[in-house]
Amino acid sequence: MLALYFDGQPQVKEVDRPVPGEGEVLVRIYCAGICGTDLEVLRGYHGFQGVMGHEFVGEVAGPADSPWLGQRVVGEINIGCGACERCRRGLARHCGQRRVLGLKDHDGALAHYLTLPAANLHAVPPEVADTLAVFTEPLAAALRVLETTAVSPAARVLVVGDGSLGLQISWVLAFSGAEVHLAGHHPEHLALARPRGVATFLAADLPPGDYDIVVEASGRPTGLELAMTRVRPLGTVVLKSTYVGRYPLDPAALVVPEVRLVGSRCGPFAGALRLLRDARIDPRPLIARTFPLDQGLAALAWAQQPGVLKVLVDCDS
Amino acid sequence: MLALYFDGQPQVKEVDRPVPGEGEVLVRIYCAGICGTDLEVLRGYHGFQGVMGHEFVGEVAGPADSPWLGQRVVGEINIGCGACERCRRGLARHCGQRRVLGLKDHDGALAHYLTLPAANLHAVPPEVADTLAVFTEPLAAALRVLETTAVSPAARVLVVGDGSLGLQISWVLAFSGAEVHLAGHHPEHLALARPRGVATFLAADLPPGDYDIVVEASGRPTGLELAMTRVRPLGTVVLKSTYVGRYPLDPAALVVPEVRLVGSRCGPFAGALRLLRDARIDPRPLIARTFPLDQGLAALAWAQQPGVLKVLVDCDS
Repeated sequence: MLALYFDGQPQVKEVDRPVPGEGEVLVRIYCAGICGTDLEVLRGYHGFQGVMGHEFVGEVAGPADSPWLGQRVVGEINIGCGACERCRRGLARHCGQRRVLGLKDHDGALAHYLTLPAANLHAVPPEVADTLAVFTEPLAAALRVLETTAVSPAARVLVVGDGSLGLQISWVLAFSGAEVHLAGHHPEHLALARPRGVATFLAADLPPGDYDIVVEASGRPTGLELAMTRVRPLGTVVLKSTYVGRYPLDPAALVVPEVRLVGSRCGPFAGALRLLRDARIDPRPLIARTFPLDQGLAALAWAQQPGVLKVLVDCDS
Repeated sequence: MLALYFDGQPQVKEVDRPVPGEGEVLVRIYCAGICGTDLEVLRGYHGFQGVMGHEFVGEVAGPADSPWLGQRVVGEINIGCGACERCRRGLARHCGQRRVLGLKDHDGALAHYLTLPAANLHAVPPEVADTLAVFTEPLAAALRVLETTAVSPAARVLVVGDGSLGLQISWVLAFSGAEVHLAGHHPEHLALARPRGVATFLAADLPPGDYDIVVEASGRPTGLELAMTRVRPLGTVVLKSTYVGRYPLDPAALVVPEVRLVGSRCGPFAGALRLLRDARIDPRPLIARTFPLDQGLAALAWAQQPGVLKVLVDCDS
């Protein structure tokens, strides 16, 4: 099968079709997304080697006796060991031995096929088109903010970063009734948040005032710095994105105002699928361009351009 | 009156007795404590100039018509503006214009007298000796951990730092029924925690394993580093102490394990006084030495020695 493979350099090449192991299924990929973390893989993130990609929608193609056979599915990306205390407590996402689709010790979704434990699958409701379903994973990550911290309808919330994740977070938070502001650098991205009740600002023009909650989704050191200066005493900074390098944290900047700094990662697929099914969220305006799989390198290059939102790869072509 | 005064250099000198303003009382100090933050003042913290000290017990000596006159009291150290939104919401501790006893724009407690708003006072129950009451402020800071994060009786908790604050935090947390470990560098300090149900370890000998909650009270960069490496995924690090300098935070170390890093500062005096009144906590083993006020410089020097716990100053001599 064809795959977008990384072994120090990305390349589109023929690789063996994966064979599902015990408890696993084979998924034929319809469509996959490229995410910021995939671009970090290109810079050596986790030292990953293998088939890239972790955002997908596809159809279960095997084994022949799987109750999932023929179903359209999306899949959670963390594969726990299944035996440790964290896995037994339902925290496979934090299993110390976990593999992660397209990111750590498991081939990913930018290919014709992938394998995944059946336990990771979610059936896609018929109302959800493939171009919507492929956003289940990033939308779930956005929804994770609501699990990370309680968002009061009385809160003033700032989302920092107008990329695909920041925009989806702003949409989701606006449903809470809270006053949501989004700060970014791209007027054309900010425009995608305003119709959903989000007040938007170029970062340099953000008016004075502090926030109960700041969600950092820019993946830049300047984003975390803005978050730390704009959160109120006793407020919460939710960190959604990472970057290479260290943030020089002043301990007094947490202790004196008693601020909380909280990491937040993967989220609930079921909630994301409900919002997509009921058309509460339509991420399709985020799609910058779709490439066929054999143009995977061009897709990566396109996604790396500044200001490009979601790049999709049609793996069914 | 005599006072331990700092204006770039500490000195014991005669200064004018302070005059209580509107809503304030004059307190004759019996006894005051020296805290790590006072030692930071010597290094230029907040650029403070004035009478040092913020831990005290004393007697209200004026004005003559105060309903507090003659009462033995302790006092909260933050003085809000009283007019801003935070003060109106009961968050004077986080007022942007606040003054802080002996730390910011307000003369402190290492003197014969201080002034403080009557609203900051708490009456000391007769059961509580002066040498206990002077611990109300640091014990309240230890109790603040329980307000900062919920401590389950099923939790595994690590306290880092076996100074006065770390020890009091370990004592308070052990009351929760949680499994509390204390890591430090001073066997004679660790010995003060073991009779209270706390398992203690020299930091270098801490056995493997992670913790639901880590409380960093060492005031050292190595303490925060230990906390970040020992907290479990989805766990909480409570930062109780600051240090000069920056901690090089790897954003991925928060985002990937979804860890919470929470600042925690001043705490509830009323709870501390109840624990002292009912003899649940007796901090007197923490007293390293007591100096008379006119030997205030010697008291500071003693407190600066490595491994010295609480130094008290008898201001009534």
